[in-house]
Amino acid sequence: MVDFTVFKGSKGGKIVKSQTNRELGHDEVLIKITHSGVCGTDEHYKEADMVLGHEGAGIVEEVGSSVNAYSKGDSVGWGFQQSSCGHCKQCLTGRETLCPERAMYGTANFDTGSFAHHAIRKAAYIFAIPASIPREFAAPLMCGGATVFNALHSFGAKSAHRVGVIGVGGLGHLAIQFAAKMGSEVVVFSTTDSKKAEAMRLGATEFVATKGVSELQLSGQIDHLLVTTSQQPDWKQFLPIMAPGGTIYPLSVSSEDLKMPYMPIISNELKLQGSLVAARQVHREMLEFAALHQIRPIIETFPLTVDGIVQSMEKLEEGKMRYRAVLVAE
Amino acid sequence: MVDFTVFKGSKGGKIVKSQTNRELGHDEVLIKITHSGVCGTDEHYKEADMVLGHEGAGIVEEVGSSVNAYSKGDSVGWGFQQSSCGHCKQCLTGRETLCPERAMYGTANFDTGSFAHHAIRKAAYIFAIPASIPREFAAPLMCGGATVFNALHSFGAKSAHRVGVIGVGGLGHLAIQFAAKMGSEVVVFSTTDSKKAEAMRLGATEFVATKGVSELQLSGQIDHLLVTTSQQPDWKQFLPIMAPGGTIYPLSVSSEDLKMPYMPIISNELKLQGSLVAARQVHREMLEFAALHQIRPIIETFPLTVDGIVQSMEKLEEGKMRYRAVLVAE
Repeated sequence: MVDFTVFKGSKGGKIVKSQTNRELGHDEVLIKITHSGVCGTDEHYKEADMVLGHEGAGIVEEVGSSVNAYSKGDSVGWGFQQSSCGHCKQCLTGRETLCPERAMYGTANFDTGSFAHHAIRKAAYIFAIPASIPREFAAPLMCGGATVFNALHSFGAKSAHRVGVIGVGGLGHLAIQFAAKMGSEVVVFSTTDSKKAEAMRLGATEFVATKGVSELQLSGQIDHLLVTTSQQPDWKQFLPIMAPGGTIYPLSVSSEDLKMPYMPIISNELKLQGSLVAARQVHREMLEFAALHQIRPIIETFPLTVDGIVQSMEKLEEGKMRYRAVLVAE
Repeated sequence: MVDFTVFKGSKGGKIVKSQTNRELGHDEVLIKITHSGVCGTDEHYKEADMVLGHEGAGIVEEVGSSVNAYSKGDSVGWGFQQSSCGHCKQCLTGRETLCPERAMYGTANFDTGSFAHHAIRKAAYIFAIPASIPREFAAPLMCGGATVFNALHSFGAKSAHRVGVIGVGGLGHLAIQFAAKMGSEVVVFSTTDSKKAEAMRLGATEFVATKGVSELQLSGQIDHLLVTTSQQPDWKQFLPIMAPGGTIYPLSVSSEDLKMPYMPIISNELKLQGSLVAARQVHREMLEFAALHQIRPIIETFPLTVDGIVQSMEKLEEGKMRYRAVLVAE
């Protein structure tokens, strides 16, 4: 039986410190958490009685009896997905994030997560962190990095295509880096010019301020448009800049219906492509690519305590994070 | 100078018989029209001062000085597209329907169309009709057939995938046949059971009546869903039957916005794929495939006169056509 400290959501949204104790399963790994990213999705669960956090990074402390892939002392991380069935069509074709029996953050019985001193995870759903990536930078890649990389990697985008990124935030600032390192021209859209210098420094080739602009002006049409803002954009503003046959990836989590002009989709054969976090092989390739190109999130650190969690979530909610919060174990 | 009879739309929607006279260009062909399909899109232009009709079939009567591909007496047809620039990215990659300078039915100066005794068309934008397809059956393939074939052929559908077809009408009754001959299981959705026997005869493997049903029951999820109804469906009803990673093809022409539940698109990585009529090489493959498998529209014939046009368009508008009208030259 293992006993460790966790931080949970609760009715009313108060962050609660608590203790978990659990058997370590034969196929599981006990991880001492050193860092955890804070993601917009965590906000959605802060009223739930579950351990929060799904951008974990830490050191293996103990492995279950059937675990061969990891040993004590390994530097590992994990993200949004906890398990899948292993034998459905999706699992057999490398798309286990779509498995009907998948356990994802928030949908499973989360007695363990990354806002904690330790976590227990299935060994098959954790990832070795490349030695060249410090864990404080690896943590935000586990969900944020995996989300933007999956959109850029899994649906037909190519280096010679023009990529658009709406929003310079937790996801957007990573999307710019990944797309630029893939060799694409990267056009960044943000409400005002305030993040222009940062976007260009991260690899953007063009920056477009969108607030109050009825017709967006840019040097060429967009083949792949990643929507990374926390709300859906004004689709009317963006459909006209799409290249014929172009693809839009709505990555925002939004409870509102999708509402967009209809005929432009048909007349330009546009594609709206849903994209979730990365399946495991894609996640591995994301980490390798990030290591090769030294892609690093820009982070602000907070202590991995109730206060640190509360402060980071507040700052995130206020839209003031530059650009990803990382909780650091004391 | 060539002189011939055409039928045009006009303010108020009255069909008007008229005369055109025009030079035959060096790269053009004069076609004596024997048959013309009547398509829902024609309805949209009946108030326009243009020659109606874009599902033409006939016999080459004269060719321009630089035309080598066709000779007098050839059986030919044409569809929605009239020309493209020939040198843009889309044109150079076999996607000339997306050319920014494309001339399509209704967007170009249409002094010639298929509701007429003759038509003049660019030789590069007509198609040889296979000898085994009588022209009365070839005409509706030129737009209706090309539209459903393009969706099934150009975006990743495979024989082992399950295809859904919403609507048994001018497009739907062709989509069922094409998908069945491609080897797919075909699930047909229609408001009531009234077209069930016909759908099964055309190759459907399953039929689902949708009216008043809150949760659709079927034997398995749909990988590719073709929406062939004249209105957008209740998307809420159809998203839950999509397989993870499945694709929806909205083929309906609709002036309303697209409005559908948003999160299921992301959580199941669904794809909404705009699909227009076929580019020329796809169109040729459609005709070859239809010839090989004896895919034929079910037609009702009307005389190619003002009265015949009016009657066919009225019946189409009332939703009573079974399933595609063909105007026959007298």
